[in-house]
Amino acid sequence: MDDAIEARLIGLDWGTSSLRAYLLGESGRKISERSAPSGVMFLDRFILPGKPQSNRNYLFEAVLQEICQPWFVENPNLPAIACGMVGSTVGWKEAPYLQTPACIADLASALITVLRQDGKPVRIIPGISHTGIPGKTLPEILRGEETQIAGILSTMNESRQGKTGKLLIGLPGTHSKWAYIQDACLVSFSTFVTGDLFALLTSYSVVARTNKKTAHCDDAAFQLGLQLGRQQDQEAAGGLLSTIFSTRTKRVLGSLREEEQPDYLSGLLIGSELAGLEHILERDSLALPDFSRIILTGEKNLCERYLLAARALSWPPMEYVEGAVEMGLWSIAREAALVS
Amino acid sequence: MDDAIEARLIGLDWGTSSLRAYLLGESGRKISERSAPSGVMFLDRFILPGKPQSNRNYLFEAVLQEICQPWFVENPNLPAIACGMVGSTVGWKEAPYLQTPACIADLASALITVLRQDGKPVRIIPGISHTGIPGKTLPEILRGEETQIAGILSTMNESRQGKTGKLLIGLPGTHSKWAYIQDACLVSFSTFVTGDLFALLTSYSVVARTNKKTAHCDDAAFQLGLQLGRQQDQEAAGGLLSTIFSTRTKRVLGSLREEEQPDYLSGLLIGSELAGLEHILERDSLALPDFSRIILTGEKNLCERYLLAARALSWPPMEYVEGAVEMGLWSIAREAALVS
Repeated sequence: MDDAIEARLIGLDWGTSSLRAYLLGESGRKISERSAPSGVMFLDRFILPGKPQSNRNYLFEAVLQEICQPWFVENPNLPAIACGMVGSTVGWKEAPYLQTPACIADLASALITVLRQDGKPVRIIPGISHTGIPGKTLPEILRGEETQIAGILSTMNESRQGKTGKLLIGLPGTHSKWAYIQDACLVSFSTFVTGDLFALLTSYSVVARTNKKTAHCDDAAFQLGLQLGRQQDQEAAGGLLSTIFSTRTKRVLGSLREEEQPDYLSGLLIGSELAGLEHILERDSLALPDFSRIILTGEKNLCERYLLAARALSWPPMEYVEGAVEMGLWSIAREAALVS
Repeated sequence: MDDAIEARLIGLDWGTSSLRAYLLGESGRKISERSAPSGVMFLDRFILPGKPQSNRNYLFEAVLQEICQPWFVENPNLPAIACGMVGSTVGWKEAPYLQTPACIADLASALITVLRQDGKPVRIIPGISHTGIPGKTLPEILRGEETQIAGILSTMNESRQGKTGKLLIGLPGTHSKWAYIQDACLVSFSTFVTGDLFALLTSYSVVARTNKKTAHCDDAAFQLGLQLGRQQDQEAAGGLLSTIFSTRTKRVLGSLREEEQPDYLSGLLIGSELAGLEHILERDSLALPDFSRIILTGEKNLCERYLLAARALSWPPMEYVEGAVEMGLWSIAREAALVS
């Protein structure tokens, strides 16, 4: 964060549950950052008497003003660009999915525009869909991750010449994505509901619900879950619906302590995700060593679990990249000539 | 239901979320049935000023009086027997798990006793645990299902001579159980968190949450999910964490309507459960045709989905049995000489 450099762009990462706003300077350097729990599904608190709920424009504008007003006041002509669920059917305005293969230039030329009350535009980056082959591969969608991917690609010199070769980018989260990049283009990707199931099971199910959540990761419990999660036979013959229940059984029968349950389940689900990814690659006649780089981005503590898991599964080294979304917002805005 | 026959036993199916009480006559014939949403995790409403929450006895007694008082008044000496979470560590009193192999006689001789305020006993049936072989098979637990299994076995003439051969009993639910019976004894079983995940995903996750729940099962959507759920490769190569997300993708991309999502997900999860069960049998050098009968018991609409799924997967015919828990409560009480 640096107040001395000149602001050039407002970048918005506007998801389901939260909004994160970045004030970016030259080359996308982060000057300031603000956030609010005002994701597109949590705008109700802005509904005022006389302002009907159906006025989506008003709601999104209200949130934007709350978060970015100081920046607007300082520099009313600053361009603004947004990614995430703000461009979905439940967002400010739908930015229809682009289809794979998609590069930064494709995203930049498909921006849609909404207007603030003062008439200034906010650009919204579309998500990307991948049409599956019925019976062979599943269809896939993402929205928000395209910007993180663009951010990672924008840091690579090879990317500017479209010569990245094969890259694998992992984006752990509620719905983890693994993106396959060929020469700076997203060619396909796979989704795993790992974080979603983890949150549901530890919050609402007798299987793993606990008040004894610990901040640090219990390595032994995590590894125990991981080994079971990556397996396909023997103990894991019944599949994930069966292995998940072992989180409860082992606790009840005394081989797992209550506070170890979340880390055991986390390992189990991440192990299942990584094994699933390996099978998808195999199906597509690929393997981990085919990728020149494997890059991970996202929430740091979560990514550390994936790094731990990848080491335990003897994967090739993975790199961890921070700040991918800010870099992506900048690089797409630059490609769209919103900033020079 | 028949008020003319003499009451012989009060049977209680006391689970996590509800209590179902049966007044049973000669041979376990059901005279009357009452229920309340007073499962062992939902007793707070009975906490009165001056009656501390820690007094578990008081809480369970209060529920029992609320439901069964007319029966107690009519016949104060009627024996009472209970199964389910009432015997867990969060229940009235813990009835420690019996280990497999376990028969009706083992359950009957392991009943524990709690006393009502008037000094009359209530017997509690223990659950059953199965010690896994580390690295080979998972440990398993059940509580409540042992009574349903006993109920099914009690209806078989072969059972009395301990000559049932191999039976497979399916108990769909929040945590579906598949029980392997050899000569009227439960030798092992497998659990699948099918119902739990279905409820979590349709209630709380963007993947399948909908207000458009329909009462009837959309067969096409169910079958579509089922075919994907039973698969291991191609579209399903990524495993369940990946296939679950298709519930959302297909909706967003327009190949599945919102009201079809729950049935698609239901098919997907049940398909995964049944495929998992087949793999467990295979691991244990068993196959479906090895069982002389495959019997299903539980909530009727849910069991109908399993029957539908089994036909689609070309399983041997499955029988559906109703009233297993009442029959089980009676048969264990009879074996324990609580009724003659």
